Amino acid sequence: MENHKNTEQAFRAYVKKMADYKEANAVLSWDLMTGAPPKGKEQRAEVIGMLATEFFKMSIAPEMYEMLARLGEEDTYTRLDPVMKAMVREMRKEYEKNKSIPAALFQEYTVLTSKAQIAWEEAKRTSDFAAFRPYLEKIINYLNQFIDIWGYEGHRYNTLLDKYEPGITVEIIDPLFADLRKKSVSLLERIQERGKTSDTTYLKKRYPASEQRKFNEFILQKIGYDFLAGRLDESTHPFSIGLNPGDVRVTTKIYEQDLQMALFSSIHEAGHAIYEQNIAPELVGTLLSEGASMGIHESQSRFWENIIGRSEAFWSYFYPNVAAAFPEQLAGASVQTLYRAVNQVQPSLIRIEADELTYNLHIMLRYELEKSLITGDLHVADLPGAWADKMDDYLGITPFDDASGALQDVHWSGGDFGYFPTYSLGNIYAAQLEAALTRDIPDYKEAVRRGEFDIITHWMTQHVHRYGKMLEPAEIIRSATGEGINADYLTTYLENKYTDVYELV
Amino acid sequence: MENHKNTEQAFRAYVKKMADYKEANAVLSWDLMTGAPPKGKEQRAEVIGMLATEFFKMSIAPEMYEMLARLGEEDTYTRLDPVMKAMVREMRKEYEKNKSIPAALFQEYTVLTSKAQIAWEEAKRTSDFAAFRPYLEKIINYLNQFIDIWGYEGHRYNTLLDKYEPGITVEIIDPLFADLRKKSVSLLERIQERGKTSDTTYLKKRYPASEQRKFNEFILQKIGYDFLAGRLDESTHPFSIGLNPGDVRVTTKIYEQDLQMALFSSIHEAGHAIYEQNIAPELVGTLLSEGASMGIHESQSRFWENIIGRSEAFWSYFYPNVAAAFPEQLAGASVQTLYRAVNQVQPSLIRIEADELTYNLHIMLRYELEKSLITGDLHVADLPGAWADKMDDYLGITPFDDASGALQDVHWSGGDFGYFPTYSLGNIYAAQLEAALTRDIPDYKEAVRRGEFDIITHWMTQHVHRYGKMLEPAEIIRSATGEGINADYLTTYLENKYTDVYELV
Repeated sequence: MENHKNTEQAFRAYVKKMADYKEANAVLSWDLMTGAPPKGKEQRAEVIGMLATEFFKMSIAPEMYEMLARLGEEDTYTRLDPVMKAMVREMRKEYEKNKSIPAALFQEYTVLTSKAQIAWEEAKRTSDFAAFRPYLEKIINYLNQFIDIWGYEGHRYNTLLDKYEPGITVEIIDPLFADLRKKSVSLLERIQERGKTSDTTYLKKRYPASEQRKFNEFILQKIGYDFLAGRLDESTHPFSIGLNPGDVRVTTKIYEQDLQMALFSSIHEAGHAIYEQNIAPELVGTLLSEGASMGIHESQSRFWENIIGRSEAFWSYFYPNVAAAFPEQLAGASVQTLYRAVNQVQPSLIRIEADELTYNLHIMLRYELEKSLITGDLHVADLPGAWADKMDDYLGITPFDDASGALQDVHWSGGDFGYFPTYSLGNIYAAQLEAALTRDIPDYKEAVRRGEFDIITHWMTQHVHRYGKMLEPAEIIRSATGEGINADYLTTYLENKYTDVYELV
Repeated sequence: MENHKNTEQAFRAYVKKMADYKEANAVLSWDLMTGAPPKGKEQRAEVIGMLATEFFKMSIAPEMYEMLARLGEEDTYTRLDPVMKAMVREMRKEYEKNKSIPAALFQEYTVLTSKAQIAWEEAKRTSDFAAFRPYLEKIINYLNQFIDIWGYEGHRYNTLLDKYEPGITVEIIDPLFADLRKKSVSLLERIQERGKTSDTTYLKKRYPASEQRKFNEFILQKIGYDFLAGRLDESTHPFSIGLNPGDVRVTTKIYEQDLQMALFSSIHEAGHAIYEQNIAPELVGTLLSEGASMGIHESQSRFWENIIGRSEAFWSYFYPNVAAAFPEQLAGASVQTLYRAVNQVQPSLIRIEADELTYNLHIMLRYELEKSLITGDLHVADLPGAWADKMDDYLGITPFDDASGALQDVHWSGGDFGYFPTYSLGNIYAAQLEAALTRDIPDYKEAVRRGEFDIITHWMTQHVHRYGKMLEPAEIIRSATGEGINADYLTTYLENKYTDVYELV
């Protein structure tokens, strides 16, 4: 008893140190992405590498093995508190994943992906898939080696999925996505047949950066992003980063010719950040003080960006503010005009510019291609063609070059296969959570209409945020909604929304 | 031979890791001081503490001892290259300093100074010296314990001085300061008798923060601060911080009712930063990539702030720019008006507000009090009285309360005894360097008048900057100027300047 208490204490202190390394590196990364001067970046990368190596070494050190072994003894494990149990579970996973890959192999792979990212940037710039092809082939080869080392159940791709969405498998996703795809394509066709267009001209006027900055800050503060525990900056690619729950930062990118780009990216990132700001404080230093999975994380950002941020209630509440902030640009625009404008559906080539409905079709295309690439059913050389075929099938358009096709996303160059599906899982979870929220607080939309966003954050904190990584995604969804993952809520939500926006019958 | 090459390599890698820890912590500190949200700061302090502890542990680890022993063998040491020699010298110093203090004693002292800083802030706020007195007494007691452990030659205070200005002793400073004090007091009296006042009204108009920010950036860029290797932010107390030579950041503080506060603090900090930006790149990762001492560092900031920034040539060159930046505020102000305004001499109670002439008197007062406190000739209880007496002697004014007297500076609460004199040493070095610069480039002031500041930076880089911590302060001064430390250049410089500004005869 005494002994296992000592081990627990030592384990906590050990993991706290790892968490501190991780936090240090997160600060350095944020700094690199928001304004570190160029001449110091190369040396800074070495600092980041050193800290990451210390973290990695700790994760596979003999001490770690011994502590996990002791705490994992059945007699001991059952007596651990829930936080300890989750820590042991997560650290064991990390240990096994890291320990099983030979150091040399991992090193080769790290070098490959960092070169591949540079090659991808250049290939995208020149729209030259052939230049990127050898890198992608090698990456897929390594991923398959990792899958063989780690093992897999069911589909080979499951092992990759598990990195981003623990517990989710091809066997779960395939039927969900099949149904979502069918209904999305059909809804898209009905919208296109209806032939009604949104008036988006108001959103495309000149919106000065300084005014947008102030407006975005105002909105974020209103919806519950805590500026005493965060800050908003600008960066090339918007992101959110949790250093600790008292310091979760967001960035946005401002386009002076467009009101909605910065606004929705700010709200999206604030969704991620509000999640991490509300993780239970007792999880600090346990490495559980982060999102449960990429999908659950994305459920929060998408919930705020789309379900709330693109709702009629939201625009109704903020209408006086937005009209006052941009009186000239928005003179004559009604709530309904703006609501319809931000919900325009328009098939497009680029995922990150896609609307709420077609977005999932971009994801499913990538998911299907990834699976085929991993199994070898699709050769990298044939990827651009396969991409074009699916774009045509799902969206009725095809890329005019590689940059607007298979080279558009950074993910594959970093080896992030299995990541894309979490975006649509996020949309599915978000709609499920919205249904559960409606069940618990039937008039929550009226609260939004009055600007009382804390009702939502409170509910989300109770059911999602506070757990951090203590619960697995499926447990969170089940305990919050009373059922397992179910895409019907998303299809119903989309159906209702576009019936309203496009006056479908 | 083979063996000592291996030790050299291992030592380099080991020290590089320490330097990386230091750089990581510097980024975290910069972040804390420039905009980290308050709620995350407590946990961030733990991260900083962890990284500092790793650095400290490495500095006294058995491996360090062994490597220093091997590299220190006479046969080996003489064959090391100069960088290696300096690394061994510095790390040995660090090892001996850190190793000799019992861990428990150091821990107690760390806790004491962190509490003392909080107590000092409160005591200053309420102007209550009695509340701070017990902390100061304890700090002095610890410092005396450290002096006994580390040993001393000559005056006990030398051991403290050596922390900030290696090689400088009371025996060196006392005669220098005595002469400087006599001449400064006499010059001050002549200025006061002359009865001429500068017109500073132009500097006290309304200068909007955003305009000042732009103007400061412009000036810094012009004088050679490299914005590709740095950035300018705002903070409560202006500072500069070198992360690596490619990333040396400065901050300033803007007062909208004053043009010169931000301007001269920006130039001052840029002086520090230009120094570190120009340290030889091969010193990165050796822990020699920083200033040689506090005094040499201060010589650079003071040189830019006072000798250049408050020169007639400087104002002559920038006059069109400053007049264009602030046309309304400066309508009617001539170059001469501005030059005289920024060189106003006026005895004041607060060190950081003091002019170039009286500043050194503030320093000498502190230096003398520190010595007496350490030897026990002065009791802490008697400090406010002793302070008032010296203020009256040197400046002819006395504090109206403790906050404007002995409580005004943060240094003592952090245990930084021995630090103050480096400010005046910096002024002395700066004037010596200016004389050497004039000898090498007799028309350098004409270059300033044409805005060709790179001539100066080039000279300083050759003679000071590039060496980083490779040379000791005395070596730098001797190799740059051809002689040892000499305060005559400063007294001559001050004499000439104020004869010009105040038209003394």
